[in-house]
Amino acid sequence: MAYDEIIYEVTDGIATITLNRPDKLNASTFKMEREIRDAFVAAGRDDGVRVIVLTGAGRGFCAGFDTSSLAEAANESQGALDGEQLGTHVEDVFGTPHPDYLGRYSYFPSIPKPIIAAINGPAVGLGMIMAMFCDVRLASDSAKIGAPFTRLGLVAEHGISWLLPRLVGLSNALDLLFTAQPVNAEEASRIGLVSHVYPAADFRAKVAEYAGHLARNVSPRALRITKAQVYADQYRTLDEATLIADEEMDKSLATEDFREGINHFLEKRQARFTGR
Amino acid sequence: MAYDEIIYEVTDGIATITLNRPDKLNASTFKMEREIRDAFVAAGRDDGVRVIVLTGAGRGFCAGFDTSSLAEAANESQGALDGEQLGTHVEDVFGTPHPDYLGRYSYFPSIPKPIIAAINGPAVGLGMIMAMFCDVRLASDSAKIGAPFTRLGLVAEHGISWLLPRLVGLSNALDLLFTAQPVNAEEASRIGLVSHVYPAADFRAKVAEYAGHLARNVSPRALRITKAQVYADQYRTLDEATLIADEEMDKSLATEDFREGINHFLEKRQARFTGR
Amino acid sequence: MAYDEIIYEVTDGIATITLNRPDKLNASTFKMEREIRDAFVAAGRDDGVRVIVLTGAGRGFCAGFDTSSLAEAANESQGALDGEQLGTHVEDVFGTPHPDYLGRYSYFPSIPKPIIAAINGPAVGLGMIMAMFCDVRLASDSAKIGAPFTRLGLVAEHGISWLLPRLVGLSNALDLLFTAQPVNAEEASRIGLVSHVYPAADFRAKVAEYAGHLARNVSPRALRITKAQVYADQYRTLDEATLIADEEMDKSLATEDFREGINHFLEKRQARFTGR
Repeated sequence: MAYDEIIYEVTDGIATITLNRPDKLNASTFKMEREIRDAFVAAGRDDGVRVIVLTGAGRGFCAGFDTSSLAEAANESQGALDGEQLGTHVEDVFGTPHPDYLGRYSYFPSIPKPIIAAINGPAVGLGMIMAMFCDVRLASDSAKIGAPFTRLGLVAEHGISWLLPRLVGLSNALDLLFTAQPVNAEEASRIGLVSHVYPAADFRAKVAEYAGHLARNVSPRALRITKAQVYADQYRTLDEATLIADEEMDKSLATEDFREGINHFLEKRQARFTGR
Repeated sequence: MAYDEIIYEVTDGIATITLNRPDKLNASTFKMEREIRDAFVAAGRDDGVRVIVLTGAGRGFCAGFDTSSLAEAANESQGALDGEQLGTHVEDVFGTPHPDYLGRYSYFPSIPKPIIAAINGPAVGLGMIMAMFCDVRLASDSAKIGAPFTRLGLVAEHGISWLLPRLVGLSNALDLLFTAQPVNAEEASRIGLVSHVYPAADFRAKVAEYAGHLARNVSPRALRITKAQVYADQYRTLDEATLIADEEMDKSLATEDFREGINHFLEKRQARFTGR
Repeated sequence: MAYDEIIYEVTDGIATITLNRPDKLNASTFKMEREIRDAFVAAGRDDGVRVIVLTGAGRGFCAGFDTSSLAEAANESQGALDGEQLGTHVEDVFGTPHPDYLGRYSYFPSIPKPIIAAINGPAVGLGMIMAMFCDVRLASDSAKIGAPFTRLGLVAEHGISWLLPRLVGLSNALDLLFTAQPVNAEEASRIGLVSHVYPAADFRAKVAEYAGHLARNVSPRALRITKAQVYADQYRTLDEATLIADEEMDKSLATEDFREGINHFLEKRQARFTGR
């Protein structure tokens, strides 16, 4: 598939989606958004893909919605993607996802593979929102993460007011959203906004190492179910979560991936998971 | 309005509520509580106020309920404020708030402006609870924060057992509540109990800077809606939260504050938000 | 009561449950699991016990389910404890616990006393799960904590996909579960997985000090109710939580423990709580 505003590559089980408008710090457009979605869906379908990395070309991750379109957007409140269409689309591809994770950005949790945000530079506005809806965030020490909405007279967009307190707690979430001021990578790590910070010089290599570990050493079937469990359990009681975990555990014990999990452990060798 | 146990001042869009019984480390009384509530409601109504700071006179924030009244309270379980009356009151002033945030202290989230706890010294017992129900906590490096309830044979009061795990996680919440031992500012920052720690010597200046930023540089309309989103989303699914965010986004795009948000950005000048 | 795979001791109000298969890094078995449960129930009933410590003999906490049984388990998905039987059992002993906290490991929150995980070394797999279901985690600086499930082709077991995001946030939880890689004590502390880290040389003494503080200086009645509040409030609104806190507060004011809480404070002496 050919894209104009992103680059999509698959290597060694890792699909990398690179936002590619580096002269604009990868500011997003409606077109870019559709391309991202197509790429995520493609990566989800491709049995050769075990993990997905979302990152930016050049020195930015994503500087937000393209500011040259902002004045226009002030007079035009239509034009957003249709969340329901998207939902149907995702559902066709992956079977029935959790009915809740189907919005314009909030569909990331419905993609049945780990999504890593590799935050190589500024992630601001929609850039921040996309990074937050990824499952895990790795940051270069030159990254900055910011939610500038109140500074623009805008609200907490696209469900970030739901998500952010679940990542960093109520207090840090309100601080970030109220002040509209970006935090650097160190501060982001302190409050739990990113999981790991790496020096800018090593960043691409460290991301490749992290993604490669997920692609090679752990079961793709286990990753898929674990991801679904964590997001769905946001709405379950512990009792419900445990019953489902027990059912999934029973199913797991009958899989090739479990047998391989035991065998590579006992034989002290590299795992060869099939995802079955 | 004249108060006896607090000082209420409005300067440059910042309402400051100062607990003012410094010889008692600002230990609270039922009278102080009513004055605080009146001041919050006044600040909420006043179009000249954009942000509210709650702090203490002298070297303490609030040492808890006045211990000289405690023996009396042991024989007198009445006397608490009427949460429903308060609810009605708040509702009259601000329109229909979220039905959940209307209790004796848990009404702080219903005040439609950011509330900053400026924790200048010990915040203990009810002092801690008031600080926790503020939206953002800034602490002097001489602050101490403690929940001494179990040491007094008392339970987790006023909803703190709901709130604390949402600020610092289940594990840290249980540690604080079980041990009844105060944490210092550095430890409070590490676990997410406070957002920023400043040296005691600069503390008032740093708080003024933080509050001034919210009063001058961001949209009061956006702050109000963002605050409501974050607290209401504690009970919403991500899908519900996103639908409401989309509706609020559409409304925002038609406001003066959004136009000003774009214009001050494009013109690279200080914002002049009206809140409309 | 005599046990084969654990040691159960009560000293000065502290019940210590020591996993005791040190040559296997205390890898768990179905028998050990039943013994742990019996010991927890015994500690819960014993009026002489105020706090429970779960720890490991030798240099490990618990290395997970005994690997020599794993191949067998692959062909045998039966054999798990009966959660409902357990529930009934716990209910008989403690009165009606919260209906949700009754699973194979998720019953720890139903035990009406603080449970401290004293993580003296590796806590992996089921070892990690047991540590997470304790109320507070103290770690030796030689501890390692890991969830190796995806590496074995297994899912997030026993409700850990519900619990972990409530301890460390969604982002850190997904990182831990996806990678299957253990974190050391320092990293565990940074993300909120453990509350306090102590040097290995002092670890037993520091745990004794922490547990001794809970056994001597705070009200056992208050601990019991505080614990129930925190876990039950995971499913309550703030309003519901506050109403129940107010009721419990009223009841507390009529107790011996409250009178003692005030008196030892006013008389500046060691507390002598009775739990009544």
